[in-house]
Amino acid sequence: MEKQDQLLMKKQNKNLVLDMIKGRGPISRTEIAKNTGMSPTSISRIVNELHVQGFVRETELVTSGVGRKAVLVDVEKDVLFTIGIEIDKSNIKIAIVNYIGDIVVLKEIHRDHSENYEETLSKIAVNVQNMIEQNGILNEKIIGMAVGLPGYIDYKNGVVKLSDQLFWKEKTLAEDLKRITTFDVIVDNELKMKIISEYFLGRAKDVKNAVLVGVGTGIGSAIILNGEIYRGESNNAGEIGHTVIDPTGNVCNCGKIGCLATYISEGAILADSRKVKDLDSIDDVYEAFRLKEQWAINLLDRTTTYISLAISNILCLYNPEVIILSGNLFEKLPEIKEVIEKKFEIYTWEPVRETVKLVYSQLNTQGVVLGGAIQAQNTLLDLD
Amino acid sequence: MEKQDQLLMKKQNKNLVLDMIKGRGPISRTEIAKNTGMSPTSISRIVNELHVQGFVRETELVTSGVGRKAVLVDVEKDVLFTIGIEIDKSNIKIAIVNYIGDIVVLKEIHRDHSENYEETLSKIAVNVQNMIEQNGILNEKIIGMAVGLPGYIDYKNGVVKLSDQLFWKEKTLAEDLKRITTFDVIVDNELKMKIISEYFLGRAKDVKNAVLVGVGTGIGSAIILNGEIYRGESNNAGEIGHTVIDPTGNVCNCGKIGCLATYISEGAILADSRKVKDLDSIDDVYEAFRLKEQWAINLLDRTTTYISLAISNILCLYNPEVIILSGNLFEKLPEIKEVIEKKFEIYTWEPVRETVKLVYSQLNTQGVVLGGAIQAQNTLLDLD
Repeated sequence: MEKQDQLLMKKQNKNLVLDMIKGRGPISRTEIAKNTGMSPTSISRIVNELHVQGFVRETELVTSGVGRKAVLVDVEKDVLFTIGIEIDKSNIKIAIVNYIGDIVVLKEIHRDHSENYEETLSKIAVNVQNMIEQNGILNEKIIGMAVGLPGYIDYKNGVVKLSDQLFWKEKTLAEDLKRITTFDVIVDNELKMKIISEYFLGRAKDVKNAVLVGVGTGIGSAIILNGEIYRGESNNAGEIGHTVIDPTGNVCNCGKIGCLATYISEGAILADSRKVKDLDSIDDVYEAFRLKEQWAINLLDRTTTYISLAISNILCLYNPEVIILSGNLFEKLPEIKEVIEKKFEIYTWEPVRETVKLVYSQLNTQGVVLGGAIQAQNTLLDLD
Repeated sequence: MEKQDQLLMKKQNKNLVLDMIKGRGPISRTEIAKNTGMSPTSISRIVNELHVQGFVRETELVTSGVGRKAVLVDVEKDVLFTIGIEIDKSNIKIAIVNYIGDIVVLKEIHRDHSENYEETLSKIAVNVQNMIEQNGILNEKIIGMAVGLPGYIDYKNGVVKLSDQLFWKEKTLAEDLKRITTFDVIVDNELKMKIISEYFLGRAKDVKNAVLVGVGTGIGSAIILNGEIYRGESNNAGEIGHTVIDPTGNVCNCGKIGCLATYISEGAILADSRKVKDLDSIDDVYEAFRLKEQWAINLLDRTTTYISLAISNILCLYNPEVIILSGNLFEKLPEIKEVIEKKFEIYTWEPVRETVKLVYSQLNTQGVVLGGAIQAQNTLLDLD
């Protein structure tokens, strides 16, 4: 055990050094030693190992404080790649992402509503292979892929338990996709991947506890606590869409009465709009709001009230440092932000309001593929 | 750093061994080695150290599998003590608790509603000193005390930011109580201490994620995630009482409209009852309910609906393994449990309902003092 502890410690130290180079490189060995508290000898040994494995490279010489020349080290951004994939009702996004989180190539593919599971999977496999070849990336440098989608996901086993939007139920997605692509695959709810991207590259950097609320075809949230996704017992933590806000309200497709989602999701708003006017899509509702049609103002007034309540309530329960709002609504109707911020002031308890920063997603439409790729890297990379 | 790592590792190993003896003692050194994976030599060294420090003692000889006699070791329950204190509007509880979490002595003292901060503190100090002397406990064996109370607490600094029930605001409780008792003091919200007691001794043992919902003079919740209290940014995580459930509803003393607490707290129920009938206390409301007076049935019907909604919503957001219900309501009106459980079925989303166990507090009225004492032990004990 104590022997094993020492091996584990060595691994942790190696990870610590690599993280430091990744986060602060180019950086000198001396600087790394200073910041980690490890001895210069240990740092030299670890950096050499990382160099041999291809993770770091030496960069320029700089003059250090005492007049000697120091070589800086930085991460080798192309040492490995992961693939992030987002599957939506009418759209598939695929991104190849390098070790430092840059998107090397991003492709968007149309998806037919009627397209079945197998068709979607083989479409993904073909496109991934093409993208890899067209960009001259070696297959062995790709350590895995991640798929983000709306729905209730068994993260551990890579199974889609239920996705209303895709009409998928009990699909062994990770297994099936691995079979046809050979890559290791992780699967997660899209919002969990989105918050990962904000945590590593966006609005939740250097934050301990953050909540991301997504408003679009549905409403949901994802939570990072102490730097890790909080999942709960069955990966459903954050399912604010099925909190009940009116026990005498609308019927939800989950079989309950008064779920928040029945007032806020695009489908619900559109269905209610059609009681007033014949419309094609949610965009028409937003257009009517811009044209100051009273029914649209009323409807979006109710919507923003419920969104603000949702934000307020999630804040009371999680008391996070940052809350990130994200989703179609804010992209398509940015003027709604001001309204929500005002109602947020009205409905949120002061002690949790005072300590939170309310921000909007920075990675937006790239959040899921980027977060997925980062998550795949974090999960699948095992430093020897 | 690597040197420090090794010291830290030694400390962790020592804690691990002590925890094992505490949890499974009487136990043989061989058994400890087997369970921890550490070498028999390390175990012998650590157990000897613990013995010298007074934490463990040798118990009987038993015949081990191969016919040899083995000495078992167990923790020394009186090696140290902590003091758990609960301050309520009309009541102070003080318990001296030993190392294994047994209450050695428990005292309940009346507290006048008009009693001010200083009076309460000196009353505590006098009683604590008397209890220590009367039970022949050495002052140096007491490693600290913990105070649990209703309100918004700055846990880090031991400050009561606001307690509506006690009429305290910005009180430096830890500091003040240390000055007059000389003991180190930690301060926390009572529900956080209650869940600690359930986690170590009650309904949430061996559980990773648990939520405790307290219903009484107020409504609130406390959360344990991965074995630790989750506090959020300002120690307000779990403040379900100030989630808004009806944006056109009751005015709350926090200045907002429609907070859950305005429908569920004893004060709110009593105030609403008095619109119908002249009553002395909340007990009269429960009595009327038992006598099947229609107004009381109506009022408690609304109350149980909102309690169930609160439970449902907290489950959707935290998706815990266990939810513990606790508080006066369940103790004084146990027949209400069945009603709440039925409504819980109606209002809770299936995926989070299926994976949760709904239970009732086991430690009840002793939960706060016990949890406080355990928390003080965990926080203040520093093994050399």
